[in-house]
Amino acid sequence: MSRSLENLEQQFHRIAQLDHASTFLGWDQMVMMPEGGMPARSAAMAELAALRHELLTASAMDDWLQEAKLALSKGLTDQSHAHVAEMERTWQQAIALPASLVRAQVIAGARCEHAWRTQRADNDWDGFLSNFREVVSLSREEAQCRQQLKPEKFKTPYDAMLDMHCTGDGQVLINTVFSVLRSSLPDLLQEIMEKQRSLSVTDLSGEYPIEQQQKLCEHLMLKLGFDFSAGRLDISMHPFSTGGRGDQRITTRYRTTDFVDALQATAHETGHASYEAGLPVEWQPYPVGHARNMCIHESQSLYFEKHVYQSKSFCQAFHPSVKQFLPESGRFSAEEIWSSLTQVKPSFIRVEADEVTYPLHVMIRYEIESALINGDIEPDAIPEMWDSAMNDYLGLSTGHDHANGCMQDIHWTDGTFGYFPSYTIGAVNAAQIASSIRRAHPDWQEHFAKGDIEFARSWLLEHIWQQGSTIDSQELMISATGQGSDAACLLDHLRRRYLQDQD
Amino acid sequence: MSRSLENLEQQFHRIAQLDHASTFLGWDQMVMMPEGGMPARSAAMAELAALRHELLTASAMDDWLQEAKLALSKGLTDQSHAHVAEMERTWQQAIALPASLVRAQVIAGARCEHAWRTQRADNDWDGFLSNFREVVSLSREEAQCRQQLKPEKFKTPYDAMLDMHCTGDGQVLINTVFSVLRSSLPDLLQEIMEKQRSLSVTDLSGEYPIEQQQKLCEHLMLKLGFDFSAGRLDISMHPFSTGGRGDQRITTRYRTTDFVDALQATAHETGHASYEAGLPVEWQPYPVGHARNMCIHESQSLYFEKHVYQSKSFCQAFHPSVKQFLPESGRFSAEEIWSSLTQVKPSFIRVEADEVTYPLHVMIRYEIESALINGDIEPDAIPEMWDSAMNDYLGLSTGHDHANGCMQDIHWTDGTFGYFPSYTIGAVNAAQIASSIRRAHPDWQEHFAKGDIEFARSWLLEHIWQQGSTIDSQELMISATGQGSDAACLLDHLRRRYLQDQD
Repeated sequence: MSRSLENLEQQFHRIAQLDHASTFLGWDQMVMMPEGGMPARSAAMAELAALRHELLTASAMDDWLQEAKLALSKGLTDQSHAHVAEMERTWQQAIALPASLVRAQVIAGARCEHAWRTQRADNDWDGFLSNFREVVSLSREEAQCRQQLKPEKFKTPYDAMLDMHCTGDGQVLINTVFSVLRSSLPDLLQEIMEKQRSLSVTDLSGEYPIEQQQKLCEHLMLKLGFDFSAGRLDISMHPFSTGGRGDQRITTRYRTTDFVDALQATAHETGHASYEAGLPVEWQPYPVGHARNMCIHESQSLYFEKHVYQSKSFCQAFHPSVKQFLPESGRFSAEEIWSSLTQVKPSFIRVEADEVTYPLHVMIRYEIESALINGDIEPDAIPEMWDSAMNDYLGLSTGHDHANGCMQDIHWTDGTFGYFPSYTIGAVNAAQIASSIRRAHPDWQEHFAKGDIEFARSWLLEHIWQQGSTIDSQELMISATGQGSDAACLLDHLRRRYLQDQD
Repeated sequence: MSRSLENLEQQFHRIAQLDHASTFLGWDQMVMMPEGGMPARSAAMAELAALRHELLTASAMDDWLQEAKLALSKGLTDQSHAHVAEMERTWQQAIALPASLVRAQVIAGARCEHAWRTQRADNDWDGFLSNFREVVSLSREEAQCRQQLKPEKFKTPYDAMLDMHCTGDGQVLINTVFSVLRSSLPDLLQEIMEKQRSLSVTDLSGEYPIEQQQKLCEHLMLKLGFDFSAGRLDISMHPFSTGGRGDQRITTRYRTTDFVDALQATAHETGHASYEAGLPVEWQPYPVGHARNMCIHESQSLYFEKHVYQSKSFCQAFHPSVKQFLPESGRFSAEEIWSSLTQVKPSFIRVEADEVTYPLHVMIRYEIESALINGDIEPDAIPEMWDSAMNDYLGLSTGHDHANGCMQDIHWTDGTFGYFPSYTIGAVNAAQIASSIRRAHPDWQEHFAKGDIEFARSWLLEHIWQQGSTIDSQELMISATGQGSDAACLLDHLRRRYLQDQD
């Protein structure tokens, strides 16, 4: 190994230790910390971020990277190419922005997000706009800085923003996926609603003690292959997954009147955690050992949520456990629970949407944010675009109800642009992966019917998790499923589940 | 403010952020982390320690300190002198040891501690000795390095070890305290045992659900002034207190058959946490704003445990709450519970000892470890010294039962010498502080009888907590109580409580 590669690895090893600290302090902040801890925690997190930035942008890094690439060109393995390339990408992302811009973004983002929490409740679009204009303006600046760094790769400024979350999946791919969905999904939705009109949906509400729900969620995690000697389940306001090697931490939330939401979030987060736990050990502290991108990450959570937990056969296999831990649910059949899980209904709120309408919510956001960042529209235009798209895609009018319209999500408030598409590319990838697993294991339904998903975990471990970031996201999809992300797979899945009553 | 002082403060500010990270990651490790998290956590903690060491021993520090002292000598306040002096002391502790020695100590300490866990169970003194000799030899080297740095201050090598934990309280003071205790406490113990012979002690055991005990402990913390918006109570194998400004975290442990131990540990740790929470905000990130030393720290936990929670009047005031949360305890009177709390009986194990015999356990350890570090004895001599001192002080023979003798404590296994005395100097300080609070508040008993300790917290805040490390430990005791640490105060307290039936 070349000396410069050694230096790079040592530097990234140190960075990984700081990331470990930030990760678990972040978990603590969301799950354990009393409110009084906030000022000291913020200061510590800022210092860790600053130290990380210092290490990542150390003056020698550029030379080390150039030397390492030169050494590689003289004949090392493919994997080492990805190893150096991913370190370089991480480094480039860190040096792309002037410190003054980052500082301005932190301030503008914090101000906008903080005010949004009350402005949303007050439906105060004008108030929001007064902060949001600055956030958009700074994000455009960010996008241009990032684009300039690799103009041959990023065709649009928004492409450069996508690279932060959907690395490798650019506007060309996403446009293709959404154009297929745009032309088919609204009609499919109408068909499904028509079909479901005759279904009677059982009201599952009751009194479900939280402690029992928690035990049931842990039981579900065990069934899904979660290792509690290397992870935890806790409670937070919004479910999330975090942690690191040997210690995956997921959260869910409980309502005493409902047991379905907590289970569904638990299945989803278990998918995220399983991916992280399955990443290649040998590349662990380095970028090449990290999860590929959020489109792949979301495909794992959605595979566990939509294709395992919400499949009819697994739902039936899991039903005795639900009855055992929550005796009050005993009055519902597995069929009734499954029908409730798979009810389709257009609604205003993305996070409450079912899997048929969800991509339409995401499409609206993608159309707006890509136009915003590429300078095709100004923030003032958002409410009208939103209302019009909601009408076209979901048949609902938002009108002036911004709280349940364009002000509903936290993402844009601090300048997180380029994240939304990962939800839908993830759903496409999940459907495609599910279909490949079924092809590879024609007896999949028998396994599911016994509550056994080990065969699926093995497939995912080999084809997805163990790949880390050694290949591009679309190469990964091709090597795993035979093709790049293809919206048709998602439409097939939805037709099969919702129109043809197949599992 | 001088430029060099600014640089120093900035450096210590950064160090404080790393300490924050280590503190809460350490809490997580003891309270939350699954076992699989250990390798990654250890690596991250080691990196944070290395980064801290880098910042603390940066090449400019020496110059900054010298310049800051020069600037001070030209006329700044007393408090700023302490500010710089404490930064210098922290820096000196960091530069005192060659890296090779620190590394050797970490390895030898980890080996000895790890093996001790099984060797203790096997009563394997010879096996232990084979690792422990190296630990002692390295600690002697450490003590000599530290002594050489300030030979005018540290009269013995052991003095330099004391400075790490009992800063300011050296062998001269500790010898004086223990010589008073040695000449009086064994006789006093016999007197107390004679008096208690006629008492019938009630067996408090029963079935006490842990959730209810937890609520009761939280209730006790509220009574003792703990602020749950700035702290938590959790469970760990051994009770401890940690955290930082705005976020004090204490732990206790529960047994279902007993409720006294968990409450007592909770009271103790609440004392530690209250001290930390009361430290001066304006000095917060700097050494001068830290707790004075472990002798003062332990005085705060023992004040809360022995002088509040175990006082007869507070015990009576708290009794209705015990009955309310633990109905099964309702069959015991407050008097019966108090009698059980204050039962005196010599035993082999320090951590289970009552407040009369505890100092005798500590004295044995002090005599042995000071002789070890100063080179007056070799490790082989320990079992005989231990047995002989146990006979003299507690009338018990350890014989060859090393597991319940000289192998019972974890402290020495990793080279922690100079810590044990803080338990007893802390007990002396606590008795002295309790007596001062009573003099300042002659109506103290009326307050305690109402379960109100706010007057005591205010006194402690002003006289102890707000002082931080602005003055030496003995100056602190003199300014707060009128005299330096005086063993007579502890003996007075024990006589009053155990012979004269006073509260």
